[in-house]
Amino acid sequence: MSSFAATASQRIPVAPEALPVAAWRTEVKVRFSHCDPAGIAYFASYFDLMNGVIEDWYPGALGLDYHQFIRERVGLGYAHVQCDFLRPCLMGDRLTFTVIVERVGRASIELRLHGHRGDEEAVRARLVIVTTSAIENRPIPVPPLLRDAVVRYQESCR
Amino acid sequence: MSSFAATASQRIPVAPEALPVAAWRTEVKVRFSHCDPAGIAYFASYFDLMNGVIEDWYPGALGLDYHQFIRERVGLGYAHVQCDFLRPCLMGDRLTFTVIVERVGRASIELRLHGHRGDEEAVRARLVIVTTSAIENRPIPVPPLLRDAVVRYQESCR
Amino acid sequence: MSSFAATASQRIPVAPEALPVAAWRTEVKVRFSHCDPAGIAYFASYFDLMNGVIEDWYPGALGLDYHQFIRERVGLGYAHVQCDFLRPCLMGDRLTFTVIVERVGRASIELRLHGHRGDEEAVRARLVIVTTSAIENRPIPVPPLLRDAVVRYQESCR
Amino acid sequence: MSSFAATASQRIPVAPEALPVAAWRTEVKVRFSHCDPAGIAYFASYFDLMNGVIEDWYPGALGLDYHQFIRERVGLGYAHVQCDFLRPCLMGDRLTFTVIVERVGRASIELRLHGHRGDEEAVRARLVIVTTSAIENRPIPVPPLLRDAVVRYQESCR
Repeated sequence: MSSFAATASQRIPVAPEALPVAAWRTEVKVRFSHCDPAGIAYFASYFDLMNGVIEDWYPGALGLDYHQFIRERVGLGYAHVQCDFLRPCLMGDRLTFTVIVERVGRASIELRLHGHRGDEEAVRARLVIVTTSAIENRPIPVPPLLRDAVVRYQESCR
Repeated sequence: MSSFAATASQRIPVAPEALPVAAWRTEVKVRFSHCDPAGIAYFASYFDLMNGVIEDWYPGALGLDYHQFIRERVGLGYAHVQCDFLRPCLMGDRLTFTVIVERVGRASIELRLHGHRGDEEAVRARLVIVTTSAIENRPIPVPPLLRDAVVRYQESCR
Repeated sequence: MSSFAATASQRIPVAPEALPVAAWRTEVKVRFSHCDPAGIAYFASYFDLMNGVIEDWYPGALGLDYHQFIRERVGLGYAHVQCDFLRPCLMGDRLTFTVIVERVGRASIELRLHGHRGDEEAVRARLVIVTTSAIENRPIPVPPLLRDAVVRYQESCR
Repeated sequence: MSSFAATASQRIPVAPEALPVAAWRTEVKVRFSHCDPAGIAYFASYFDLMNGVIEDWYPGALGLDYHQFIRERVGLGYAHVQCDFLRPCLMGDRLTFTVIVERVGRASIELRLHGHRGDEEAVRARLVIVTTSAIENRPIPVPPLLRDAVVRYQESCR
């Protein structure tokens, strides 16, 4: 286990500079409707925001069309998700999400997302995507086009 | 680590009968709007459903009013969440959620939720609630009323 | 224009007793996550709640399976929606929704929904559903099975 | 009633050029999670998207901070909403929303939003915002700062 992984598992925030320079980043807004009566971003909203980040990562970093996979009945849903909420976010905050590929398996892609508000890490997630047939709802091998692009991205971040 | 914990960490579904008989359960519907264009329940929707389960567990099992805590500016948000999606759910499915208390800390409550569709475990989550001041957005000790009720529930499930 | 319609268009709340006794009703909870940082139910949440009401009205009042239409690629989306928010709702509130059929057209069904909190009308909506082919995304005649059930319901409410 | 209003009430799509050149516009993406199992954008998602549009219109066109009003306990919720869904939208679509001020009342602001996909109008809404005290949940006069900015915007669009 690398020292980063150790850190990662201990809920110690990482600085944006500690992440690979070549990693793809995007900014999202924390909106009024993401927040709850306690005044902070609702936890389920982060997951929706992160799916949007991944949706944009496909064309932005992989050169692929996320929606085309869905239209061709390739499911890109999650088998496992875990998330640390390190700082509460408020409406008006802007989060910069960085996407890291952890692992590419036979029928799965494991991503790590870091959400920073300025220099502060606010949220960190690990998301295991399983590629499925959306017709039969069972795992299928990661389509070669997707696998190649994800592996290439992973290597570019080393 | 108990054998259940080992099982739990290995994504092996548990039968409803394997859970404590005294544990509180509630049924939720997987609705049209919980599902995505791939035709299955969207992962962020489960988190929202689970918050509703916890919201009902307060009056149903603890004899407390969840909303009253929020109104008194006690935040009941999450510091950590992890979830295994073991089976895809479809609109029209009914999930029975069982709530287990894993641990009560100084300023945190760790819950485990199991969602079964019939005898099949479809989703399992671990959610770490942190009690906060919703005014200053920083942790505060679990209010004694809540702590007592949660500990009592935990013991009743043994 | 009936005097009720006149009333309805003037944002004057109606008492629950003013609605047809035979009309189908269901209760929904206003949850924590339906509410926004202003502390009241967010307007978009009502529309989602109302879709759930209609989803339950199919089996509850029409004896039909809403999801089966979707699975058979019959879209039941909306062409027009209007809604009056007469009273702000808070988390913990319970709303009783009553479903009224206004009109059945060739490819459309117009519903009126009233949401009461106790005796107070909190929300009222008019929703025009258009039956479509979900493959080609164009209107199709209301399926006879659905038309018959909706007309029967409409007559039962007279 | 102006001829535009007549047109507007007849569900006849308007071309983007028919709208005031000076009106503020913003582009939003129709995401995977906005869409439902019928494959098109879910009606409640549009309302959430439109609230985001209005949230951005405050700083973008009025030079004001939407969130600041909420933080100061000025509610900007809706008393009435109506919406025509003129074309189904699909994931991946981009909608350009144009914001028009219809009327500024004592405690209300009426907006009209047009959402175009390319040259095609896909969605059109009328939203009546009521300014409220978020503490007492009752209407208050539109704050002068907001009123002035909205009137100025309205005049600039003439």
